[in-house]
Amino acid sequence: MNITLPPEGQPGHVRIGDVTTEAGATIPDVTVAFERWGRLNADASNVILLQHALTGDAHASGPCDEEHPTPGWWNGMIGSGRALDTDEYCIICTNVIGGCRGTTGPSSEHPDGGAWGSRFPAISVRDTVTVERMALKELGIESIVAVIGGSLGGARTLEWSLMHPDEVGRALVLCVGARASAWQIGIQSAQIQFIENDPAWHGGDYYATGERPVHGLGFARRVAHLTYRGELELDDRFGTAAQPGENPLGPMRTSDRFQVESYLDHQADKLAARFDAGSYVVLTDTLNRHDIGRGRGGMNDALASSTVPTLVAGVDTDILYPFHQQEHLAKNLGNCMGLETIESAVGHDGFLTEFERVDGIVRGFLAAEV
Amino acid sequence: MNITLPPEGQPGHVRIGDVTTEAGATIPDVTVAFERWGRLNADASNVILLQHALTGDAHASGPCDEEHPTPGWWNGMIGSGRALDTDEYCIICTNVIGGCRGTTGPSSEHPDGGAWGSRFPAISVRDTVTVERMALKELGIESIVAVIGGSLGGARTLEWSLMHPDEVGRALVLCVGARASAWQIGIQSAQIQFIENDPAWHGGDYYATGERPVHGLGFARRVAHLTYRGELELDDRFGTAAQPGENPLGPMRTSDRFQVESYLDHQADKLAARFDAGSYVVLTDTLNRHDIGRGRGGMNDALASSTVPTLVAGVDTDILYPFHQQEHLAKNLGNCMGLETIESAVGHDGFLTEFERVDGIVRGFLAAEV
Repeated sequence: MNITLPPEGQPGHVRIGDVTTEAGATIPDVTVAFERWGRLNADASNVILLQHALTGDAHASGPCDEEHPTPGWWNGMIGSGRALDTDEYCIICTNVIGGCRGTTGPSSEHPDGGAWGSRFPAISVRDTVTVERMALKELGIESIVAVIGGSLGGARTLEWSLMHPDEVGRALVLCVGARASAWQIGIQSAQIQFIENDPAWHGGDYYATGERPVHGLGFARRVAHLTYRGELELDDRFGTAAQPGENPLGPMRTSDRFQVESYLDHQADKLAARFDAGSYVVLTDTLNRHDIGRGRGGMNDALASSTVPTLVAGVDTDILYPFHQQEHLAKNLGNCMGLETIESAVGHDGFLTEFERVDGIVRGFLAAEV
Repeated sequence: MNITLPPEGQPGHVRIGDVTTEAGATIPDVTVAFERWGRLNADASNVILLQHALTGDAHASGPCDEEHPTPGWWNGMIGSGRALDTDEYCIICTNVIGGCRGTTGPSSEHPDGGAWGSRFPAISVRDTVTVERMALKELGIESIVAVIGGSLGGARTLEWSLMHPDEVGRALVLCVGARASAWQIGIQSAQIQFIENDPAWHGGDYYATGERPVHGLGFARRVAHLTYRGELELDDRFGTAAQPGENPLGPMRTSDRFQVESYLDHQADKLAARFDAGSYVVLTDTLNRHDIGRGRGGMNDALASSTVPTLVAGVDTDILYPFHQQEHLAKNLGNCMGLETIESAVGHDGFLTEFERVDGIVRGFLAAEV
């Protein structure tokens, strides 16, 4: 097979045909967007696969530009001599099915016309792996040196290692658990409700209305962001400070804000500007469906059956995926390489922000004998 | 003074005249609802004051009945031979200003007609103490043996000890911090937004419209409840189980729920049936304003200046008021009696549910030499 990959850090697309989901829905003619860094070697045996988080995309490395509303989510980690060394590896990151950055999702064109919208089926974490594997096969890639991901990406990494152990050399699972916890399902379902309750949602079919459920998506993001960030870090940055020029302590309640409210408003506005509410709903539901034990005799049996050498890491102040969930993974995985603690006040997002520590973890992970 | 108190566990009311808030608003002719257990002795020197949490009320002990939509929030703790022994003490619990269970709040009649609604001023934690103290003075009570409270009640207990140290014998502060944290302000402000964004809110003046912002209040409660409960406890109860008869894992997203979603829906419905959204907004804003350091040289100076013997307790799995906040109180209070850890998977609500442990803490608190 003679594959032409796109330039480094620029989008490529592969068409993989029809996809049938774990729950039995069919999505015809799926396109998968991806980016790559480093050269694919002759026998396509030097691939490291990266898995992005909920609102991430294939742009793991590189600047903001016309094609990219955000800088690479793991900037600094990928390149010549970097932890993910492009002199040795071909790093590939695909945009998840259900997403909104090039891979087929609810905002994509439906074969019958209009956006998929409410017609887009539910996507499980396993479906995301199925789709990605089909895309890799289209690129001539039959196995991967390693798969690495955090949060939703960590769930996908776990499923890769369980679904296709013979095709995965090793796995690095960051900031996730073996299945959704009830607390996660609760807070995630609330976020879906905020969006669905926005009149501009139009039952998921807002694409042709000229409206967008920015209020609902903003509410979801505010709450989500508070689960992504450690409360110590937020308190250190904002405490009880008032937003400059505003007085949240006046005699009447007004729209005057504390500084942390302004910060959350900003996070909400930024996401609403760059991310599709339909994708947010589909992928949040994907997180609710995360359960490596489904159909495998429960999560501990599933973990015990794992043969892929797997390193687990987590942040000690993670509210969303508390560190005990990573301890649970490490204790029960059939072939665990170890458990690394990222000590950070930042919380869940630490796998994206604690560069030096995560850089060291990735280097150690790839260098370890297995 | 010859005071007639209501029967035990039944509402009494005192009118305390006009109240001017910390921020400078005036509320005319305020009424304070209260309940009591045990006999007030001749010189009114045997009073223990209880402080309820956000959606609590004066009914600390007793059954559900016509007057009381909920059972006493500390049932079992109050009575002859109980931790709060009515053979010795007169236990008093008032409904907080801004509430909706008998004390003046946004749903109360405004002197100019209609409900207060959006005209109701902002209430600080200190205002709640000011109002309560005025009510006690109307009852002829000039000092209290002890003040005890958790969560919002804990914030009020702290302020009692700092505002009126000569009138408070000792204080038991449960499950709170020295001030609102940025995380708390963030999650609490989000809840206020959910309610204010409900079209049925009508800018806070929904009382005569025949509508009630039950959706917004429900959203607030779902999120709040997830901060009140430990994620381990919720996961142990619900995990990823589907609500019986529903399939949240089908090929399309539907309204079918996980069990934890049904549980949160139930919590939301229960609160919407019994609690005024206006009070929820006012008192949530009260929590945002909690800062014992305001005007006292910062929180550590304020704590150091405290002279009232104060026992601090917290739950090790509290998400909303993490245990390090109680450690901070205990380390910095000028006259700290100690720090008790309530070990429980239940989280913040542990001060309401871990009966035996809290019973022991209260007994030890009252028996200690100070």
